[in-house]
Amino acid sequence: MTYCVGMLLDSGLVFASDSRTNAGVDHIATFRKMTVYEKPGDRLLVLMAAGNLSITQGVINLLDEDPSAEIGETIWNVPSLYAAARLVGSALRKIYEIDGGYLKQHGEEFIASIILGGQIRGEQPRLFNIYAAGNFIEATAETPYFQIGESKYGKPILDRLITRSSTLDEGAKCALLSFDSTIRSNISVGLPIDLLCYERDRLRVDVRRSIDQQDPYFCEIKRQWAEGLRETFARLPDPCWGEKLDPI
Amino acid sequence: MTYCVGMLLDSGLVFASDSRTNAGVDHIATFRKMTVYEKPGDRLLVLMAAGNLSITQGVINLLDEDPSAEIGETIWNVPSLYAAARLVGSALRKIYEIDGGYLKQHGEEFIASIILGGQIRGEQPRLFNIYAAGNFIEATAETPYFQIGESKYGKPILDRLITRSSTLDEGAKCALLSFDSTIRSNISVGLPIDLLCYERDRLRVDVRRSIDQQDPYFCEIKRQWAEGLRETFARLPDPCWGEKLDPI
Repeated sequence: MTYCVGMLLDSGLVFASDSRTNAGVDHIATFRKMTVYEKPGDRLLVLMAAGNLSITQGVINLLDEDPSAEIGETIWNVPSLYAAARLVGSALRKIYEIDGGYLKQHGEEFIASIILGGQIRGEQPRLFNIYAAGNFIEATAETPYFQIGESKYGKPILDRLITRSSTLDEGAKCALLSFDSTIRSNISVGLPIDLLCYERDRLRVDVRRSIDQQDPYFCEIKRQWAEGLRETFARLPDPCWGEKLDPI
Repeated sequence: MTYCVGMLLDSGLVFASDSRTNAGVDHIATFRKMTVYEKPGDRLLVLMAAGNLSITQGVINLLDEDPSAEIGETIWNVPSLYAAARLVGSALRKIYEIDGGYLKQHGEEFIASIILGGQIRGEQPRLFNIYAAGNFIEATAETPYFQIGESKYGKPILDRLITRSSTLDEGAKCALLSFDSTIRSNISVGLPIDLLCYERDRLRVDVRRSIDQQDPYFCEIKRQWAEGLRETFARLPDPCWGEKLDPI
């Protein structure tokens, strides 16, 4: 299983992905889900992928090529994030063309879900969620984040704490706590967490950390968060139900 | 969609269920998911159901009858919670026999999941999770709760806060917060919440409340919880990433 979250904030972008791949409980390995395309001063793109690893690795291999083989576009020279998302969609469709029928023969679904975000010189930072069919949606003013993979356990904390005006540090902290909640509830999402924070208009990576269970900052905020939740819970007033029984 | 949680604590049992049923976004209605079987001094059983409503309503109708039509057992006279869980399993199998083939004809899966808990005189309180096939598991010393339906959003808070030694009040508070997290993240889980708290060895219901959005206690703990989370989050130290870029 996989869990990835990408945030589009006024201050920039935050990306976080786990590193666990499993194809059955006795076939567990560590695979990075995050790929970074950086040409300092020109572009910084981050791609995170969930789903069938053979599909998503295929997509990433195609992105350095020109899937149309005519237009001459690659992830390194497309003029906009929209064009980059189209490119990823085209790569997904090409992999589907190659492998889709064979997967079906073996009863396997074509499952893939991708978050692509970043900034290309001349544009604002943008964030896309690309589906297996190669179609995609873009985060708008009301959407501060996208998740892919095992997203539900870690969603309430994002809904409560993240808005477009959150700082990059707040985004990173909240992403780490969202991973903590997910990892506690689902053993198939695993450390290390790859974390990348991008400050808008920098057009290069400033923060890129691989966070494992010994990471002192992650340990500290996990501890303080757990303690704060327990204290907040302990302070809640007890119910005073009275004698009345409601009909159920 | 449905969300139900049942807790087995040293002090007794807590049950909570939502009231939303939807068969498509334009076909939303309120249905109670909780059924109470109470014979004061003898037994208190609570059944909560998720899945296809025609199946689970069928099960509940059969429980007042004797599904074997030979042994003479009903939910009102079985000697143990284990026998009650068997009875529910048998009812599920009978509904499958009646409707399963026809559902399949229409491409519908036979989806049903049931939590059954309570106490019968002479026994300890017990809690079961019964599956569509009529088989079931029982909560053991390490398992303070079962969830059915849309369970993921509300699971992290239970994992963090509930143990077997939690009080009934703590269980009720935590169940309500777990519903709050779920309802915020999934529009298809809806109020009112039916809440039932059972103190062990009472063999009758003491607390049974239908909690809607005006409920002053629910509003108050939601407010304090949200505020406490925001304050805890604001107190967390900011990261100090430094210059080092980890390879990703």
